[in-house]
Amino acid sequence: MTVKATDELVFLPLGGSGEIGMNLNLYGYGPPERRKWLMVDLGITFGDESTPGVDVIMPDIRFIAERRRDLVGLIVTHGHEDHIGAVAHLWPQLKCPIYATPFTAVLVRAKLQEADIDAKVTVVELGGKISLDPFEVELITLTHSIPEPNAVAIRTPLGTVLNTGDWKIDADPLVGEVTDEEALRRLGDEGVLAMTCDSTNVFVPGRAGSENDVRDNITRLIAEHPGRRIAVTAFASNVARLETVALAARDAGRSTALVGRSMRRMVAAAQSTGYITHLPSFVQEEEAGMISGEDIVYLCTGSQGEMGSALARIATGEHRSAPLDPGDVVIFSSRVIPGNEKRVGALQNALAARGIEIITDSDHHVHVSGHPCRDELADMYRWVRPKVAIPVHGEIRHMMEHKRFAESLQVPNAVVAPNGSMLKLAPGAPTIIDEVPHGRIHLDGRVPVLEGDSLARNRRGLSFAGFAGVTAIVDAKGRALTSPTLVSEGIPETVAAAMRNAADEAARGARIADDEEGAERIRRAVRRAAQSAWGKKPMVKVEIVRLQADRK
Amino acid sequence: MTVKATDELVFLPLGGSGEIGMNLNLYGYGPPERRKWLMVDLGITFGDESTPGVDVIMPDIRFIAERRRDLVGLIVTHGHEDHIGAVAHLWPQLKCPIYATPFTAVLVRAKLQEADIDAKVTVVELGGKISLDPFEVELITLTHSIPEPNAVAIRTPLGTVLNTGDWKIDADPLVGEVTDEEALRRLGDEGVLAMTCDSTNVFVPGRAGSENDVRDNITRLIAEHPGRRIAVTAFASNVARLETVALAARDAGRSTALVGRSMRRMVAAAQSTGYITHLPSFVQEEEAGMISGEDIVYLCTGSQGEMGSALARIATGEHRSAPLDPGDVVIFSSRVIPGNEKRVGALQNALAARGIEIITDSDHHVHVSGHPCRDELADMYRWVRPKVAIPVHGEIRHMMEHKRFAESLQVPNAVVAPNGSMLKLAPGAPTIIDEVPHGRIHLDGRVPVLEGDSLARNRRGLSFAGFAGVTAIVDAKGRALTSPTLVSEGIPETVAAAMRNAADEAARGARIADDEEGAERIRRAVRRAAQSAWGKKPMVKVEIVRLQADRK
Repeated sequence: MTVKATDELVFLPLGGSGEIGMNLNLYGYGPPERRKWLMVDLGITFGDESTPGVDVIMPDIRFIAERRRDLVGLIVTHGHEDHIGAVAHLWPQLKCPIYATPFTAVLVRAKLQEADIDAKVTVVELGGKISLDPFEVELITLTHSIPEPNAVAIRTPLGTVLNTGDWKIDADPLVGEVTDEEALRRLGDEGVLAMTCDSTNVFVPGRAGSENDVRDNITRLIAEHPGRRIAVTAFASNVARLETVALAARDAGRSTALVGRSMRRMVAAAQSTGYITHLPSFVQEEEAGMISGEDIVYLCTGSQGEMGSALARIATGEHRSAPLDPGDVVIFSSRVIPGNEKRVGALQNALAARGIEIITDSDHHVHVSGHPCRDELADMYRWVRPKVAIPVHGEIRHMMEHKRFAESLQVPNAVVAPNGSMLKLAPGAPTIIDEVPHGRIHLDGRVPVLEGDSLARNRRGLSFAGFAGVTAIVDAKGRALTSPTLVSEGIPETVAAAMRNAADEAARGARIADDEEGAERIRRAVRRAAQSAWGKKPMVKVEIVRLQADRK
Repeated sequence: MTVKATDELVFLPLGGSGEIGMNLNLYGYGPPERRKWLMVDLGITFGDESTPGVDVIMPDIRFIAERRRDLVGLIVTHGHEDHIGAVAHLWPQLKCPIYATPFTAVLVRAKLQEADIDAKVTVVELGGKISLDPFEVELITLTHSIPEPNAVAIRTPLGTVLNTGDWKIDADPLVGEVTDEEALRRLGDEGVLAMTCDSTNVFVPGRAGSENDVRDNITRLIAEHPGRRIAVTAFASNVARLETVALAARDAGRSTALVGRSMRRMVAAAQSTGYITHLPSFVQEEEAGMISGEDIVYLCTGSQGEMGSALARIATGEHRSAPLDPGDVVIFSSRVIPGNEKRVGALQNALAARGIEIITDSDHHVHVSGHPCRDELADMYRWVRPKVAIPVHGEIRHMMEHKRFAESLQVPNAVVAPNGSMLKLAPGAPTIIDEVPHGRIHLDGRVPVLEGDSLARNRRGLSFAGFAGVTAIVDAKGRALTSPTLVSEGIPETVAAAMRNAADEAARGARIADDEEGAERIRRAVRRAAQSAWGKKPMVKVEIVRLQADRK
């Protein structure tokens, strides 16, 4: 393939650069007006306290949806929600081919099926190649905290980009292959123009550690608590960890019960693709309650303190299949995702209050991260030797630190390109040449809305000082026919009464000639009354109803 | 003093046992019907995302307010908000004498004055004694993260209790005295029945470390960044830390500006009681902007990412007196209080995005905790040798772990007594003999409400699915005179329109004979419409207005 003078190779993140979550990386090749695009990952992020009522947040894909005829395909690197979670929601706007390795394909297909979407997912073998003109794509197997994490090597006539996806270096990941260092070195020898690379743990010195270290500890801990019921909570997608628990239980003469839907689902996906098929069969949740305490380990969801999860119900003693008593043990084989600290603390307090012993990664080595720490990043840069380091998968502070770190490793260029930045990689020096529309889509109930139009912010406002809706009923001449109604929520009754009086006075005080002016007058009077009685101003909306009736 | 057969010595926490915050410990002596009470600390806790619109939460003091004639006094151990914050709010219900050491007395008096409350605060010297019949009280100087932390030794005819308050062991606290180990050992020799002790860091092995270690690092860091503006954020009450920054700045040839009201306030309180009087005078905030970058250090509030704080305004470049440019440095000489992780992360991202270098305690040793880690707890138990260990100042999981830890140190009895538990300490074995009314008071705006009656929960509900207030206007026969009004907030317009239609249909569909029945019928129809259009059900309230007018 010949390179034309106007051809460019660009990188454009629409998600995941400036946040940890919602990954969406685009690679473009060709002249600006006729560029072809390759998408890598299409994830979601979860709403938090700043977005009440919004559980799922997705990238704004307007830019690429408008160019979907030039989108040659979507490759998903691995099966975590922040990489595949938006596929079912957004594919209808893209209608492109989807490529994934076998295990990830099972997870993506399940999502598509659930959403009743008829998209085709092509399975690519580990280490496989796909030709998506003008991109020649090769998958390179890495290690992470889920089976089949893939880096994507994207070869173009203007150079090769390596999209690492999420990774760590684990010499003994227990389930799946080890990091394909050989392939990375080979790619480095061949020459890599740019590498977009995981920034999650850039502040953490050393190495993440191997999944195998955790196995030894969990095996010992389960063996050390004979005669007590044991529950282990872990991320369901960490199939190696699930295997560890099952094997540790077996070594201690116990069965393992899967408690929680996502546990069962993930085990089924893993077994259907040939992973963990050698394990003793798991006990069904319904039968678990009939097995005596010393003979079982409950492997359950809920490590983040999620309401209604298996562990939350176990903590309150509500879970019929997994009853725990004082002296029993819960192992948190997980970390606390930032933002969940209070919720997890509350769960642990509920367990502690019932006399249950809690083991976490702060007192025992029962969890390892799936992301590269500084020494691992240094290894990766040494193997791949990119000319341009592009930190992704991080908040701005992580990306800035990753840039500094890459520079310290003698990478010639390191560029922080936040979501929406079109970064030209070739020809010439890496330069941000454009900012395209980008942002977040809130899934509010079933309704997707742009973050800027989202009502989550208004609702958050309601949570501070409540709301009052006033309806004033007047006659044709604007005279009050009766006292205005005031319906409120979140406002103390004494305050609401003062507000009601204020509305009445304002409505009766003067004729309402103009609806808008009258409504504003009442609104102000009502808010003033709240401020005076309460020290806070609720949101107030006023409607004027004009009836052709006489005053009584 | 003779002991009567019916005399008892009891401990009763009304706050701080089951939470970190809002400390209130009561000690009672005498027969049940005529017990005298001594209160130690009267603090607040801060509201969080689970209590929107409520910034301040206080203990429910009903039990002791009803017995205020038997309350011999309030001793505040030190000046942190979780120990003194509720004094001005709740003293009017108690009207008891208040005792504090000089620095703490300045802080308490300022609070009382601000609230226009005429309570008397008696100053007790460090190591001083107070006779509050039947309690003989002795203060023992400890170390913490604020000047003048005091343990309270309470001698009674039935034995001595040591209330540690907040403490650590710091051989070089820089400001104030070292831990009075001698007095603690002496008390131990004399015999201590029970010790109520800080549980905050019970999960942390080792020792908290000395304030002096931090001084070396901050001095080096400031010296290592010549020619760049430096801002340091710290807890204002950590006077030793403020001194450290001022001295480190002086060593580097810089002035220090205090930025933020609580910084100025705390420095004034310290200097008025003879602390940090030897420092070069601080630059006034207004003048700071006129000093060139290499000549200044900004010492500022906002380490927890508080909105509108000095550092938050510095981060966005809005602070006129403390402008920072790319390449400038912010040192977080603080820890992140659990629950504030996201807010602090957002602040650090805002700084990073502007190219400002961030130094935190995760990369440099620029902060030490003020609470005892396990080795320090072991020292304290070795010195004091109480017969009963009573963990306080912790969530349930901390208190349970503290109990286990005390038992491992051979303390004969360790008892977890959550808020409201009346724990009889003598005569006989320690036993929880009663549970008294206890709980939390939300300060909602200016209105104090019992947690159970608090509207924060309802308001939180509003934040998930919004609110709609419907007013239906009907004639005497219950026929709709017009379409009902629907005012809403937090609900997408398309959904609100569907809800409005549903209200109209429900109001017109049948006569409203009974207001309550009619309102409920409309409410259900409206919520059903929301569910169908949106997948969520907002809060809906309906008012029926009955007018003596004819239908038009």
